[in-house]
Amino acid sequence: QVVIHFDSISPIDGKALISCEFLLLGFGLLESGCVSLKNEVNIMMKNVIDIVFGGITYWLFGFGLTYGKLYSNPFFAIGYFAVDADLDEMGPVFSTFLFQLSFATTATTIVSGAMAERCNFRAYCLFSLCNTIVYCVPAGWIWGSHGFLNTLGAIDIGGSGAVHLVGGSSAFVAAWMLGPRLGRYDHGNEPLPMGSPTNALLGLFMLWWGWLAFSSGSVFGVSGHKWKFSARAAVTTINASFGGGVVGLIYSYIRKKGKFDILDLISAVLGSLVSVTGGCAIYRPWEAIVIGAIGGGLACFGIPFFDWLRIDDPVGATSVHVIGPFCTTGLSAFWGVLAIGLFADGETLLSLTKGRAGLFKGGNAYLLGVQTLAAVSFSLWAGFITFLLLWIINKFIPIRMEAHEELLGADLVEHGIRRSGVGVSRALSALGSH
Amino acid sequence: QVVIHFDSISPIDGKALISCEFLLLGFGLLESGCVSLKNEVNIMMKNVIDIVFGGITYWLFGFGLTYGKLYSNPFFAIGYFAVDADLDEMGPVFSTFLFQLSFATTATTIVSGAMAERCNFRAYCLFSLCNTIVYCVPAGWIWGSHGFLNTLGAIDIGGSGAVHLVGGSSAFVAAWMLGPRLGRYDHGNEPLPMGSPTNALLGLFMLWWGWLAFSSGSVFGVSGHKWKFSARAAVTTINASFGGGVVGLIYSYIRKKGKFDILDLISAVLGSLVSVTGGCAIYRPWEAIVIGAIGGGLACFGIPFFDWLRIDDPVGATSVHVIGPFCTTGLSAFWGVLAIGLFADGETLLSLTKGRAGLFKGGNAYLLGVQTLAAVSFSLWAGFITFLLLWIINKFIPIRMEAHEELLGADLVEHGIRRSGVGVSRALSALGSH
Amino acid sequence: QVVIHFDSISPIDGKALISCEFLLLGFGLLESGCVSLKNEVNIMMKNVIDIVFGGITYWLFGFGLTYGKLYSNPFFAIGYFAVDADLDEMGPVFSTFLFQLSFATTATTIVSGAMAERCNFRAYCLFSLCNTIVYCVPAGWIWGSHGFLNTLGAIDIGGSGAVHLVGGSSAFVAAWMLGPRLGRYDHGNEPLPMGSPTNALLGLFMLWWGWLAFSSGSVFGVSGHKWKFSARAAVTTINASFGGGVVGLIYSYIRKKGKFDILDLISAVLGSLVSVTGGCAIYRPWEAIVIGAIGGGLACFGIPFFDWLRIDDPVGATSVHVIGPFCTTGLSAFWGVLAIGLFADGETLLSLTKGRAGLFKGGNAYLLGVQTLAAVSFSLWAGFITFLLLWIINKFIPIRMEAHEELLGADLVEHGIRRSGVGVSRALSALGSH
Repeated sequence: QVVIHFDSISPIDGKALISCEFLLLGFGLLESGCVSLKNEVNIMMKNVIDIVFGGITYWLFGFGLTYGKLYSNPFFAIGYFAVDADLDEMGPVFSTFLFQLSFATTATTIVSGAMAERCNFRAYCLFSLCNTIVYCVPAGWIWGSHGFLNTLGAIDIGGSGAVHLVGGSSAFVAAWMLGPRLGRYDHGNEPLPMGSPTNALLGLFMLWWGWLAFSSGSVFGVSGHKWKFSARAAVTTINASFGGGVVGLIYSYIRKKGKFDILDLISAVLGSLVSVTGGCAIYRPWEAIVIGAIGGGLACFGIPFFDWLRIDDPVGATSVHVIGPFCTTGLSAFWGVLAIGLFADGETLLSLTKGRAGLFKGGNAYLLGVQTLAAVSFSLWAGFITFLLLWIINKFIPIRMEAHEELLGADLVEHGIRRSGVGVSRALSALGSH
Repeated sequence: QVVIHFDSISPIDGKALISCEFLLLGFGLLESGCVSLKNEVNIMMKNVIDIVFGGITYWLFGFGLTYGKLYSNPFFAIGYFAVDADLDEMGPVFSTFLFQLSFATTATTIVSGAMAERCNFRAYCLFSLCNTIVYCVPAGWIWGSHGFLNTLGAIDIGGSGAVHLVGGSSAFVAAWMLGPRLGRYDHGNEPLPMGSPTNALLGLFMLWWGWLAFSSGSVFGVSGHKWKFSARAAVTTINASFGGGVVGLIYSYIRKKGKFDILDLISAVLGSLVSVTGGCAIYRPWEAIVIGAIGGGLACFGIPFFDWLRIDDPVGATSVHVIGPFCTTGLSAFWGVLAIGLFADGETLLSLTKGRAGLFKGGNAYLLGVQTLAAVSFSLWAGFITFLLLWIINKFIPIRMEAHEELLGADLVEHGIRRSGVGVSRALSALGSH
Repeated sequence: QVVIHFDSISPIDGKALISCEFLLLGFGLLESGCVSLKNEVNIMMKNVIDIVFGGITYWLFGFGLTYGKLYSNPFFAIGYFAVDADLDEMGPVFSTFLFQLSFATTATTIVSGAMAERCNFRAYCLFSLCNTIVYCVPAGWIWGSHGFLNTLGAIDIGGSGAVHLVGGSSAFVAAWMLGPRLGRYDHGNEPLPMGSPTNALLGLFMLWWGWLAFSSGSVFGVSGHKWKFSARAAVTTINASFGGGVVGLIYSYIRKKGKFDILDLISAVLGSLVSVTGGCAIYRPWEAIVIGAIGGGLACFGIPFFDWLRIDDPVGATSVHVIGPFCTTGLSAFWGVLAIGLFADGETLLSLTKGRAGLFKGGNAYLLGVQTLAAVSFSLWAGFITFLLLWIINKFIPIRMEAHEELLGADLVEHGIRRSGVGVSRALSALGSH
């Protein structure tokens, strides 16, 4: 990741960045397909907000929190306010900015899924402005040259920790603070029907390809041997999704007695992608299948678990993005980040691991220990700051929509879009009886 | 743009071209989402036509009008009929052809949006065949080595003028000649409901990423310092959209009294992208925000203005693509193209501006003058030729659909697609009372 | 293709691979748009299955059947089980693996279209696991250094034969074994209505751009002159689609008496892409238009022809992907593969044709003969093995859905998705009367 390549960044990178944005588009579509029809537009709008508001604050101070040179201590940096660069720095600074910007907006987007269908739009806008801080500080820990995790030797190539664990922890806290949707658990834990399964699957496809670009782009550069690791990262990424997909299909086949549930499969594939991306370039292909299968399994079992906790997350974002039991002890320990401590190749060519190897590769427990510290730090930071932000925002604008607004749907209430077949009249009568 | 790189084009370019096509896909989806359901398929078909018919004429003579070597004067060139190339020219000619082809089809696609829901399909096919001439001649002015604007030193890196001002001027004239849709202004200026806001937003996302590729691809090449300017172009492009997005949200919040209108936000973001792309590689990031904010604001205020003129443009293409008051005096002067004359860095490395600087950067008024000339020339040419083409076509095939066809919708009339819930029977009864 | 570049593969390739996946996404959307609404999700799920199951077997043994080094004879190779590679081989092996993986899954995806709306989901999963063998063996014939077609000098740059003829032959046999959908020909040969024409057109756009990447990616590499041929491949690909598109429009205009049918246009454009891709880098642009026009014409005329045979193929996959009369004598001889024997440039720079030229370019009949042998071998192999696989699978799980399941639709039966307006109650009453 960036700490490694900042000064050896290469001309080719710019092209890869754009494909990364597919992640965001994929999340947008997936979320829009998962929510009910009356909130479909609203959640796409929230993704637009993530880019516009999240982007502005990232440009203003976020990038500087991660890479700033004016001042730094092991926990944060300061500098690069309103990012600009002169000719000699222009290439690496702007390339890194674009790549990290897509990471930052992805971390925010994950949260929008967990808050879907019941979060006030204005409150969300405010949250989107502030959320930069949730991502940028821990990104500096692991990727900034000042960061304590970086100094200790923790590894996170494609963002399992700094992007997806951070995003998932935020999502968990946000979903918990908002509470479940009205009537969500009135009839047991079975999920509410998806508005558009086709869009959700289309989103999955986009995420899939976006992730390939993301992972291989994380080891970007053509100089020397980098491109080989980039190809390897793509192979491990796709292989992990094979493992996750198979687990998802089996899980769904058993749970639904012979039927194949869309959401189970989507969760499993996403779970596998999230779990492999942190160490994508330093796994062997067959290990990636194992890692992805475990990651996918955790994502599947996470859904009923969180439902049992009565935390309502329409897109399953919490379980997908936490992958590994950030908030519970039942699920295996922060799988995505920890796996690096187990499976990392101790290759010496790019020195991605600074010569250290995972426990299963002849290394000692040091790397595993550092990775555990990283996972704990990411989760606690993201959970706590998200709580703080939403708690403060809630003082000014109630983060939960009014009951009647929720029943009418955000598309109508926030954007004036009325569509037939959504059952607003039914919602209104339900409101009367509530 | 091409005039600069034609002989120093580099191997990497081919890859970038493909992402550019996203612009087209984005426009197609946006238009399809904005029109009513009964015309959704028809407008996607028009985008297919733009590629097939527009592509053939571009290959036959369009490329030669811009870059031909057989004959040239300051206003057009001739050559490269049915583009082909031998080994020594193959690389740059074919790369430039592909890049410019996507510009040419984009310029046509913009017009299809303005003509939506009421233009005869056969007439549109004819227009699509001829429209190549509208784009290729002014492209030669600014990018061909023979062009008078090029000789004078006018700048248009990503096509603010030659693509979007040309496309927007055509769109304005086409919308004006067709007249508003039936019943469009019977109940005031409030827009007719969009058929599929989700598709429109999906289209916005695709345009967004496509534009990043477009802008950074416009400064393509890895040799020397080009890749740094490519990264800069991507940063200014995304930054401009932050500015535009914020303006759009505020505008909509005020206008709709607390609601956020989809079309306002889409227009604002598109407006900002259109306004920044001409000078993307020679602005500073914060300037891009300002330029985008102004561009976005103009796009927003343009919608009610053109509605007040009673020119009906379902996708808002006229106001988005003209950006700046090409047809009125009220809006600031051709913002997209003029901004280059104000903000251009006088960098000497790639010599993108031939050493000249914008008025705010220590330059004199020369560049601003040339840019003004460019904007005026583009608008007048595109408006006049579009008028001429449609006027001639109208003699053979009436460009306006019959009233009953318009009410039934082009999907049914032109493609035999009947869909439930579209209200054809209602349309038929409305026809009776008209 | 790969046999050529395996040892001279270059760093840039990794980026191109991702765009290739658009082919798959495009096919998924196209198929999903073409089937009736009650099977829309099911066919997207089948595309997910193609990646997950097809990918696993490709990784386990498929890649080795094509490129293995442990053992080989002219007909297949063995090796690379569970693909992995050390540092010195990592780059080319992993890059080739990714590129070929996308070819392999594309070949399977084509079949899913032909089996739509009536194939049992569990049987399809099994087929998807085994189908790797159908693709990987003939891919070795033409691209593996051991292959007999490769030794003889047959050419297939972008997969006209090894991907699309193989896929189309499989599709034909699969559609024939399943038989037509219930009620398909009760009211003549007019196609059943498409579920979502907009999605089908969106899929076409994605296929279009994906194909550009596919074709130009097939000649990948920046070293020396390769990038020039890559640009040429993109130009011939897009030009072929111009030819095909025009033919499709004319065909539809005549057949439908002035209306433009979506499926005719989609088939024609796909047909032209399929027919040009085998020789994309060794045609001249105007030849590509001719080749594409013929390919597009065959695709159009193939639809009524196969309907006359009473073989029901909802997506028209058989005719699109066979292109050229692999199963009949009426259509010209395997157009896509044969055209290489007619039009191939005998260029000596990359030695793509080993110095041989097509019949129309001053060569003798040798190349045409070899191409004919290739086309025959591909068709027979794919048809026969597909028959064998489905025949065996049918012994364990009946490949045809139960009549009541087919009427209810796979979305409800396999995935528990009930949607309004699909007419399940109508289907149930139809079931009663059947």
